[in-house]
Amino acid sequence: MRREGNEEIDPEFVARLASYLGFDKERVQHLFEKNYLARNWGKYEYLLRFDKEISHIERGTVLYEKAASFETIMGFPKIRRAMVLDPTIKRHFSGLEKVAVEEKMNGYNVRIAIANNEILAITRSGYICPYTTQKAKEKLNLKFFDDFPGLVLYGEMIGPDNPYVSKEIYDIESVEFYIFDIREKNSGKPLPINRKQEILEKYGFFQVRFFNEFPLETAAEEVIKIIRKLGEEEHEGVVIKDPDMVLSPLKYTSSQSNCSDLRHAFKFYNETGRDYMLSRIVREGFQTVEWDEDEIEFGKRCMQLGESILNPLRRSIESVKNGQRLYEEARIKVRDLKTAAEFEDYLKRLGVDAVFEEPQPIEEEYLIIIRKINKSTNDKTQAILQGETW
Amino acid sequence: MRREGNEEIDPEFVARLASYLGFDKERVQHLFEKNYLARNWGKYEYLLRFDKEISHIERGTVLYEKAASFETIMGFPKIRRAMVLDPTIKRHFSGLEKVAVEEKMNGYNVRIAIANNEILAITRSGYICPYTTQKAKEKLNLKFFDDFPGLVLYGEMIGPDNPYVSKEIYDIESVEFYIFDIREKNSGKPLPINRKQEILEKYGFFQVRFFNEFPLETAAEEVIKIIRKLGEEEHEGVVIKDPDMVLSPLKYTSSQSNCSDLRHAFKFYNETGRDYMLSRIVREGFQTVEWDEDEIEFGKRCMQLGESILNPLRRSIESVKNGQRLYEEARIKVRDLKTAAEFEDYLKRLGVDAVFEEPQPIEEEYLIIIRKINKSTNDKTQAILQGETW
Repeated sequence: MRREGNEEIDPEFVARLASYLGFDKERVQHLFEKNYLARNWGKYEYLLRFDKEISHIERGTVLYEKAASFETIMGFPKIRRAMVLDPTIKRHFSGLEKVAVEEKMNGYNVRIAIANNEILAITRSGYICPYTTQKAKEKLNLKFFDDFPGLVLYGEMIGPDNPYVSKEIYDIESVEFYIFDIREKNSGKPLPINRKQEILEKYGFFQVRFFNEFPLETAAEEVIKIIRKLGEEEHEGVVIKDPDMVLSPLKYTSSQSNCSDLRHAFKFYNETGRDYMLSRIVREGFQTVEWDEDEIEFGKRCMQLGESILNPLRRSIESVKNGQRLYEEARIKVRDLKTAAEFEDYLKRLGVDAVFEEPQPIEEEYLIIIRKINKSTNDKTQAILQGETW
Repeated sequence: MRREGNEEIDPEFVARLASYLGFDKERVQHLFEKNYLARNWGKYEYLLRFDKEISHIERGTVLYEKAASFETIMGFPKIRRAMVLDPTIKRHFSGLEKVAVEEKMNGYNVRIAIANNEILAITRSGYICPYTTQKAKEKLNLKFFDDFPGLVLYGEMIGPDNPYVSKEIYDIESVEFYIFDIREKNSGKPLPINRKQEILEKYGFFQVRFFNEFPLETAAEEVIKIIRKLGEEEHEGVVIKDPDMVLSPLKYTSSQSNCSDLRHAFKFYNETGRDYMLSRIVREGFQTVEWDEDEIEFGKRCMQLGESILNPLRRSIESVKNGQRLYEEARIKVRDLKTAAEFEDYLKRLGVDAVFEEPQPIEEEYLIIIRKINKSTNDKTQAILQGETW
């Protein structure tokens, strides 16, 4: 990612920011110099983002000046993963009577908020994506932000016209926003689940599927049933929550989701992080033990794992052998071509190597196919096929 | 690995060493301080070893004072790997008419040489293993070292009583040394294959299987045939060599060997390097493409891969679940219990967590079972099963 330079940092601004954050000035100055604290650009230049986790402030946290002070939109809190459901749920939520189970959807994480009278779609890293922002404006009931300027929607952009994570499994025509949390500005405090649901319903927002509340004692077995069903539909998994949202949530995913991650990872085997690949494999091991699988089920799991790895690997190598370049295809749909141009500029700025095809008019919109080039896997594969050693 | 301190470095010694290596004194001083150049201990203290590759001197290279100067035993040269046989062999050996193909055996790499009138078995890292040294003295025709004090045997210790890499596939009763290269001291220059075979035969040494010389044009297809056969016997693979040993060799392994590596790696999934695991998986992808496999063969390969990963993973998790500790079992056989005591001390010094069982007298020797504890995978698995998040 290209970092933004911070040529001129006003000492008075640094002093005010330091006082707001409770840091000393030298530390704030240092954060700017290291680009751990950086500005967005263009019309979003007023938005600072934390590019690194600093003293419990999550990476991707955004802040901006407001009424002689500052206002903060906290980043996405990391959700810890259960590798086995029992006893992890009991241990993590010990003291609670019940836990709530929601679906973990596979989309693009985005926070939607109002700042300086502007609706913003903020990415996990704290950038303002112009395409996601435009879609949020089109899709969401914006009255919410007039009524609750101090609240932030934490959700997923889902659907085939999502250029980041495109999934066909959710039966969505273009894109929709599915909200999983509502949090307060500054404190980042989440609303209890009841209250969240009430507000989301009132404004007609889509929300992630709520399965139920379950007694702590039986939650693990209930989640196993849910995960099996979700897996059959190729859905990702669940997030298990304290209904009051005081304790932090836990996540757990289906085998199909692990395998789907692996299929993507091995398609671009030279790009994807080793830790990413291995963690998905190890999850399969713990799941088969916790589910006490017999040899037939276990054999199926081995085959699925093997195919999820080797199929995309083989296909990528064959593609390069046949002279094709490896790329990821994505698509967007825009009403105004200006949004596409802004999005293209945005990706370039983030260092993404993407080719935008000619816009195709479809009804009142334009469909644009985007090819993200996977140079590293492509070059490596080509070199090997031409006789280079490992 | 525990590093040896070098409290007192004689400046006159540093000066002589610097002059021998062609480095300046400060650099040699620095190598000692960083422990990139370190001494062995006890009666082998006179042997310096390079713990890092420095200016084309391979890691594991050993040197010692001799007749007012020094003598060097070069480390094992890294052998590059072909990911596809065609065109890699043609490209790597271009200009040659023929290449020689030898078996790559799966054992423990060791150099055997004479220095200061002592026979030494030197490990890949440049340590002197007391057990391997004793076995070398028992198994090898030591007259070779009287006749050729300037030559070094590069080989593999193979067999069930090899405490490092124990394989039953070679039909060896205890351990044997299989030699693959003979190299000169100091220069590290290897003998041409003909000459090497002549000497190894003369002194009755075991040598790695020599398949044949093949014309460069058809070598890839010949190697594929050999690899298929080796794979069926669970043997590792081949090393392809310039018969004159001027160009560096190339290696290539069977799918069964990749899968066997994976079985070991996933048994101790928290110990093994991510790169190690992934490289073995990626090899499978290139092999299936080069071998142009049909769907039945490909399906078998997927299943083998999946099982090689999930079986050991499942077994390790289950073992910990059942309260057992994960360990690797190895064994040694010694005539004199002193060798076992020295070996135990040696492993301790290298930081290996190993438990030596009571010696069992067998014929004229003692069999000792060694359990190497895999603490990291053990602890991680236990923590997860007790409900810790990832």
